Amino acid sequence: MNELNDTNQGKHTPLTELGEFGLIEHLTKGLKNRHASTVKGVGDDAAVLDYQDKMVLVSTDLLVEGVHFDLTYMPLKHLGYKAAAVNISDMVAMNGVAKQITVSIAVSSRFTLEAIEELYAGIKLACERYQVDLVGGDTTSSVSGLFISITVIGEGEKERIVYRNGAKENDLLCVTGDLGAAYLGLLVLEREKQAFKANPNMQPELEGYDYVLERQLKPEPRTDIIDLFRKNNLLPTSMIDISDGPASEILHICRQSEVGCNLYEEKIPIDQTVFHLALDFHIDPTTCALSGGEDYEILFTISQKDFELVNNMPGISVIGHITDQNSGVNLITRSGASVPITAQGWDALLRKEKEK
Amino acid sequence: MNELNDTNQGKHTPLTELGEFGLIEHLTKGLKNRHASTVKGVGDDAAVLDYQDKMVLVSTDLLVEGVHFDLTYMPLKHLGYKAAAVNISDMVAMNGVAKQITVSIAVSSRFTLEAIEELYAGIKLACERYQVDLVGGDTTSSVSGLFISITVIGEGEKERIVYRNGAKENDLLCVTGDLGAAYLGLLVLEREKQAFKANPNMQPELEGYDYVLERQLKPEPRTDIIDLFRKNNLLPTSMIDISDGPASEILHICRQSEVGCNLYEEKIPIDQTVFHLALDFHIDPTTCALSGGEDYEILFTISQKDFELVNNMPGISVIGHITDQNSGVNLITRSGASVPITAQGWDALLRKEKEK
Repeated sequence: MNELNDTNQGKHTPLTELGEFGLIEHLTKGLKNRHASTVKGVGDDAAVLDYQDKMVLVSTDLLVEGVHFDLTYMPLKHLGYKAAAVNISDMVAMNGVAKQITVSIAVSSRFTLEAIEELYAGIKLACERYQVDLVGGDTTSSVSGLFISITVIGEGEKERIVYRNGAKENDLLCVTGDLGAAYLGLLVLEREKQAFKANPNMQPELEGYDYVLERQLKPEPRTDIIDLFRKNNLLPTSMIDISDGPASEILHICRQSEVGCNLYEEKIPIDQTVFHLALDFHIDPTTCALSGGEDYEILFTISQKDFELVNNMPGISVIGHITDQNSGVNLITRSGASVPITAQGWDALLRKEKEK
Repeated sequence: MNELNDTNQGKHTPLTELGEFGLIEHLTKGLKNRHASTVKGVGDDAAVLDYQDKMVLVSTDLLVEGVHFDLTYMPLKHLGYKAAAVNISDMVAMNGVAKQITVSIAVSSRFTLEAIEELYAGIKLACERYQVDLVGGDTTSSVSGLFISITVIGEGEKERIVYRNGAKENDLLCVTGDLGAAYLGLLVLEREKQAFKANPNMQPELEGYDYVLERQLKPEPRTDIIDLFRKNNLLPTSMIDISDGPASEILHICRQSEVGCNLYEEKIPIDQTVFHLALDFHIDPTTCALSGGEDYEILFTISQKDFELVNNMPGISVIGHITDQNSGVNLITRSGASVPITAQGWDALLRKEKEK
């Protein structure tokens, strides 16, 4: 994660030296628009995008300091990268491709120009990696804290947009990658924060936690999946990305599709390091995988006829199947018991952990 | 402004009773999508918009309590209306038409469900009046205060989008409506707030200030101008809406168009009530009109050949003409003196007033 290191060494220019327009100009200097569709980016009342026979996708996220992120362990560059990445992930969740984003931030006077530059550096890095144009935004002051609002605009082909509400009985439930790592990364960071509070001379012990920390601090949207689906001529029946946690996302799909689901515990993809680390934290690995969020993997359903196709794709697990609505949404445990899945997002989980 | 009155009489349901998804569902209940292009609105990872051979316009604004608005004199319903209106105005400023908006809010625990409903009622009212679909957003908590982030998506015809950078030497500078009223509305509200602080038993004295208060609390985007231009087959060479103040906006046009400008003091449209009220506040009416912002009128330039066309349009004033860049951006006073125009937005003006 060296590319996300602090590149401003100790400079502290107050934002007031630039003024609002100066700051915007400074931050957007050197931005290049990549798409022919970006007729006009930063610098006017609105961005102008030229689409023909395409679907335009728009999604937006508001991130609040102290609610969505903690700057004591989230470096600003990572925060910027993640803020852009999770929005790009929303486009993936529609089987679409992110093309442009707008970024609005409100910052209190405790932030320096360099701090905001770091934030933007992370955003720009994600934009570069995922070929997204930053086309506008707003920069303003807050009374306290940092607020980031990102809107992403993407496109998709009319026949290939996938919604949450298309799952049908007997469809198979699939997920990309593995689950639970991002949440454990957060727990590791929280633990070190508490240890640091107790003894400020202590050095953080983060060695050996690379995987879970990277999953928490620098999630990568699964844009590769969209390409894979297209190459294989596969069209899922429903799709959603995992932000709140698979349990919550499965419930979204089932509710909107008016179906039920059986999810098999033994099929849930959990990395070995995640499995053992969860036990270190005295958390059931399955609970961690299902209720821990922020993995930004893609949960989707496919028609049974496409099973062979998906089975041959690397890094995709079939974890359950869709049932009728009356059967409910259930986890089938290793011992064969059927347990209703509840909407316990990672916020709730974290709260429970803190109460211990 | 009766339509913006409080419709929740004394109910105080805590937001925690609903949870995030419950709140979103509650707030978006009964929303109807008006456009065939709105294939998918609220309820998925992204809104899906279908455009063909049109330009897609996107603009975004972040409004912060204590910075952009003061809830002691800005009712939440008005705030919602204004937040939507100023974004719709950004579409007008491109010679485009707003079609969809997304609304993200972060609220602290001091806000009740009814308070947020009021805010949304104002947003929905503006959406109804200006035929805009609310297609998505994000609702989250803040540590303190209210934050509103709105993104508007609009469309325009490829040949009729107007930028800030198209003004040419000898073009005429025009403005819609009259100027300075919104700023004076703010001064009246500020004055009453100070009086109330000094003596809480005092009743606010707002009678006779209807016009300036309405301009401040309920600005209306000039969507009518877009229709008027089209009907008359008029295409301005540059356009911008007045949010920061005409002085600042003229400087934007001149800088981006690489031109200068002579603006005639005697031509600036100022309502009689505004003129006299400015004097009551010991402010020069011209300064008030040029540096006071938030009028959301449209400033634009036209080719000289279109003078007759514009001269016959009601409510449009020709206030100056474009010169070469070296001549600078100047106000020609009633006495014939040429004074350089500086970028003194209404924030700066307000600060100056407070320092007195």
